[in-house]
Amino acid sequence: MDKIGKYEFVAEPFHCDFSGRMFLGHLGNQMLNAADFHSTDRGFGMKYLMTINRSWVLSRLAIEMMEMPGQHEHYTVETWVESAMKFFTNRNFCVAAGDGRIFGYGRSIWAMIDTETRQPTDIYSIDNGAIDKWIVADKPCPIEKNSRVKMSENADFMRCIDINYNDIDINGHVNSVKYIEHVLDLWDIAWYREHRLKRFEIAYVAEAHEGDKLSFYREQTAENECCVRLVKSEPTGINAEVCRCKLVFVNH
Amino acid sequence: MDKIGKYEFVAEPFHCDFSGRMFLGHLGNQMLNAADFHSTDRGFGMKYLMTINRSWVLSRLAIEMMEMPGQHEHYTVETWVESAMKFFTNRNFCVAAGDGRIFGYGRSIWAMIDTETRQPTDIYSIDNGAIDKWIVADKPCPIEKNSRVKMSENADFMRCIDINYNDIDINGHVNSVKYIEHVLDLWDIAWYREHRLKRFEIAYVAEAHEGDKLSFYREQTAENECCVRLVKSEPTGINAEVCRCKLVFVNH
Repeated sequence: MDKIGKYEFVAEPFHCDFSGRMFLGHLGNQMLNAADFHSTDRGFGMKYLMTINRSWVLSRLAIEMMEMPGQHEHYTVETWVESAMKFFTNRNFCVAAGDGRIFGYGRSIWAMIDTETRQPTDIYSIDNGAIDKWIVADKPCPIEKNSRVKMSENADFMRCIDINYNDIDINGHVNSVKYIEHVLDLWDIAWYREHRLKRFEIAYVAEAHEGDKLSFYREQTAENECCVRLVKSEPTGINAEVCRCKLVFVNH
Repeated sequence: MDKIGKYEFVAEPFHCDFSGRMFLGHLGNQMLNAADFHSTDRGFGMKYLMTINRSWVLSRLAIEMMEMPGQHEHYTVETWVESAMKFFTNRNFCVAAGDGRIFGYGRSIWAMIDTETRQPTDIYSIDNGAIDKWIVADKPCPIEKNSRVKMSENADFMRCIDINYNDIDINGHVNSVKYIEHVLDLWDIAWYREHRLKRFEIAYVAEAHEGDKLSFYREQTAENECCVRLVKSEPTGINAEVCRCKLVFVNH
């Protein structure tokens, strides 16, 4: 089996925004689907891991796009494991059109946890370090690595939203894609008419649950660059950071 | 070409709820995709209609499920035109598992409009009434037709939300699926643990736009049956009903 997985998708009408280009959240979802297909086909997917009380947890995701697939357009997502360490793997993505034109790239970092203790576990303990068989170190992914998102204490409070039924996945947490959507909702269509989102980065810190409230704090960190911190307020009164994002826009 | 279209899908992890069953909104989206594929392949799809300044507009949708596809499960959506009149067509859906087991059915009503005047136009004016070639009057769709959703003036105000970037599709309106999601968010996970949504009906009345606020009014109309009215408040101060839903739950 090829070390690189390649999966075909189409940009569905209701997954496209006002401009007829795919929403980043839906593209991110297809990347995560591609990761799921790739790892399942190679013996280290979620379904198998569940049977041995292990699970992949997405820790960081960066997506950088030159262009977004347009409505009804077919595109492919390639994915491969660039490297693996004891507690983390780096998985990359390449999104391309049917004619081979590159739309963009993604980089992600995954931890493996013990589903009972919720603690990180050794990836190399799975099937005698079988992950090493699948590493592709030399395929280019010409975008910057996931960075540390630095924010000051001066970020502006933007809004607070309730976490609802549609935000929660089978793990009982807000699903990774929903955070992306809620963050992108901080800008209005007038902004997106003038600016294209070039790069989106998210670092997941803690999990939010139904009944929590999510507060969004935004800070402009450079021209056309903003960082966003999401803080949950649990019904018990506990507040905690759940994730942090960096967005880089370019003028249209 | 067969009069009935049949399309294969898979229940993606992030399209499933806390219980591992598909969200109704995503299933509705796949029904609308199936409708798009079916009509496009038969010469009366959106893309062709755009070239003659016509468009399909979804007027009503009813979905009734015995069971929802579970995470990673493959399912098919069959769709066909049950009947056509001058200004409306009835399009039905059947959702089934790979082994033929029926998950549920859908019924929808579509108008054809002139995209310049936004007025209904004669469906039979397209290609000399070609729609008649595709009618399948005898395939069973054993669920009730779309009903008139009756509500009193005593519905309870539930919440008011902002319409954001991710709600809006290429037409500049809130997409049909987003209303379904926002309505289902009126109930919490504790409710869904105890109740299964058996039937969901929606009648679209007017279009909401970014910057509008959406208010939700809910009324219990029978045991395990609720109706919901969505009212938009435009920045200009105009208020108008945008859609009305009926939900029938059964105890788990």
